[in-house]
Amino acid sequence: MLVNKNFFNVSESYLFSTIAKKVNEFAAKHPDKKIIRMGIGDVTRPLCPAVVGALKRAALEMGDAATFRGYGPEQGYDFLRTAIKDYYLRRGVELELEEIFISDGAKSDIANILDLFAAENTVLIPNPVYPVYLDTNIMGGRKILFMDANEQNLFLPLPDRSVKADIIYICSPNNPTGAVYDTEGLKKWVDYARGNGAIILFDAAYEAYIKDDGLPRSIFEIEGAEECAIEFCSLSKTAGFTGTRCGYTVVPKALSKLGADINKMWLRRQTTKFNGVAYIVQRGAEAVFTPDGQRQIRESIGYYMENAGIISSALSEAGVWHVGGKNSPYIWLKCPDGMSSWNFFDYLLEKANVVGTPGSGFGKNGEGYFRMTAFASRENTIEAMERIKKIF
Amino acid sequence: MLVNKNFFNVSESYLFSTIAKKVNEFAAKHPDKKIIRMGIGDVTRPLCPAVVGALKRAALEMGDAATFRGYGPEQGYDFLRTAIKDYYLRRGVELELEEIFISDGAKSDIANILDLFAAENTVLIPNPVYPVYLDTNIMGGRKILFMDANEQNLFLPLPDRSVKADIIYICSPNNPTGAVYDTEGLKKWVDYARGNGAIILFDAAYEAYIKDDGLPRSIFEIEGAEECAIEFCSLSKTAGFTGTRCGYTVVPKALSKLGADINKMWLRRQTTKFNGVAYIVQRGAEAVFTPDGQRQIRESIGYYMENAGIISSALSEAGVWHVGGKNSPYIWLKCPDGMSSWNFFDYLLEKANVVGTPGSGFGKNGEGYFRMTAFASRENTIEAMERIKKIF
Repeated sequence: MLVNKNFFNVSESYLFSTIAKKVNEFAAKHPDKKIIRMGIGDVTRPLCPAVVGALKRAALEMGDAATFRGYGPEQGYDFLRTAIKDYYLRRGVELELEEIFISDGAKSDIANILDLFAAENTVLIPNPVYPVYLDTNIMGGRKILFMDANEQNLFLPLPDRSVKADIIYICSPNNPTGAVYDTEGLKKWVDYARGNGAIILFDAAYEAYIKDDGLPRSIFEIEGAEECAIEFCSLSKTAGFTGTRCGYTVVPKALSKLGADINKMWLRRQTTKFNGVAYIVQRGAEAVFTPDGQRQIRESIGYYMENAGIISSALSEAGVWHVGGKNSPYIWLKCPDGMSSWNFFDYLLEKANVVGTPGSGFGKNGEGYFRMTAFASRENTIEAMERIKKIF
Repeated sequence: MLVNKNFFNVSESYLFSTIAKKVNEFAAKHPDKKIIRMGIGDVTRPLCPAVVGALKRAALEMGDAATFRGYGPEQGYDFLRTAIKDYYLRRGVELELEEIFISDGAKSDIANILDLFAAENTVLIPNPVYPVYLDTNIMGGRKILFMDANEQNLFLPLPDRSVKADIIYICSPNNPTGAVYDTEGLKKWVDYARGNGAIILFDAAYEAYIKDDGLPRSIFEIEGAEECAIEFCSLSKTAGFTGTRCGYTVVPKALSKLGADINKMWLRRQTTKFNGVAYIVQRGAEAVFTPDGQRQIRESIGYYMENAGIISSALSEAGVWHVGGKNSPYIWLKCPDGMSSWNFFDYLLEKANVVGTPGSGFGKNGEGYFRMTAFASRENTIEAMERIKKIF
């Protein structure tokens, strides 16, 4: 038996284990210090009452023979797909039900969608970025090109027509930089993809954090995107589902313009390799899209975004260059005085007892940058920023 | 962009859609007839009270900031892995916690495990069998060999030393035939795999239906299996989780004898491409392994197995050759009078108004055979068998 040798080319990530080690060592040496964690990429506020109620009701249904549900459709129940269809329609994006696939999270689908594409494709990935795009393509043995996201392009790289890529990853609002493409920027990517017969894998996991009405929350707000893009969405950050696992993926039928019925291929992939998301979780997800659910999740998103505003203001006051935090829960700052990401990590931990994430953990262009997130409590966010302002 | 052309080699399955069409046509023509469905491959009894209680409690936990859980470990929470470790230990199989991976069902893991193996491997698949083994390997572009399961070997093929295979699928108790390997039979497969440097993918989704204490419920009851086998388990049929989605996969560390650290590769695959099973579902699954949960699921399994006994007795009385039904919820019968699978389907629907599954839908060796399942209600099972006895 031969193993897939590409696995051995995936480099081990020591980012979060190194952070944990450094923080634990500091805490042991300074048991009196209150450490505040601003690097956390996970939500902290609980599921909203509408969702909890729906989960409980669904659990009871499953315990009664009259309402019990066995295997559901692999692509998701129509009640949830309809709720998502309506959610898109409210933003002017018209989808067919068959274009919406319920998933157990954006990460799974972003990884599994690669089953549909040959190993011979060239992949274009922003740097820095969420590591899953890179690692899954290394596992698949594909040729990988990077596009530079940097201070000059405000961490929003645009197409370089001299580069020929087949599969393009875009994450907007971006993880880790918090930068968000405007309509014009996305249009350039759509035009590039259509001109090259390429496909865009658009990660919209943070769309609900966009406050500016002028910014696109779906790539399908861009004309022609339905002929060249797949969109991955998640309730993880939108509705606190990081531990409840539900997302959705939009695979337009018009992608057949690329020469194959990608929508049907994905349906085939999912019906063969997946058995759908738990019924109770889908009922919980449905509740997110009700008026009550939307109001309740908006409260949590508002809470996080106020945190983001507090972080951004404090950094501005301290004269620290940064992007993000306006339409995203992530703030990406330039380490002061030319410090490296890890030096700044140590400095911040030592001087302010605040923990963030070194940008170099997201790719070489992240070196010299640092990620903070808006997911801590209000009290801790304020205190961390007071401390940071003091040390600058 | 180039698509994965292997997808076009997967043949469309019209099995269940054709069944539905024929049944609907018959029902429209004969609105007075009561049709009984004995082809259903899904459980019908609800989740047991222990599981429903755990699901409800976990939903409430997720609604409270103090007990809320975000991202969990991709490989599953230790509370559930420990419960499964103990479950194996009660059968004398000692596993390490790190060898147990929680999944959203056996189907996902059986499909996704192939990420670990090169496309150049030769795959050996029983015929007839659960179609997922075949289709996922066609999608992966692997060379596929079949082993004949037939009346001569009681649908339990043994290794043919002249065949060289790298990846071997075994499903015991078998879907669709209900045949179960004994220790001696599995030992032959383990010896063959070890002699060839091959890996066995062992589908144990129906292990809980084995009543005979002398039969192995895990391949790891066989000496040396930990050096050549991965086992896939599911709570779908064991605890009515077909719509709740939880299973587990055992990937022994000793598989490193095959020349690569398969356990670590799977961990890497799952941490990169999966985000774990919902916390509430894992709490529900944990309840299955409590004394209350075990007693309650045993009641449902007992109910189904009494149905299986009723079916098997009726077929014996009617002089119909069959296997299964003794340690499995599936009964695999030989169509009388040399009828083809589909002719018998039509005959049974017409004469007895009973629906089953044509064996030819599971592979060419299924032609002339027919699958019945024990998942209908007691009342319907008895009535269907009375009708069948009458027509023979």
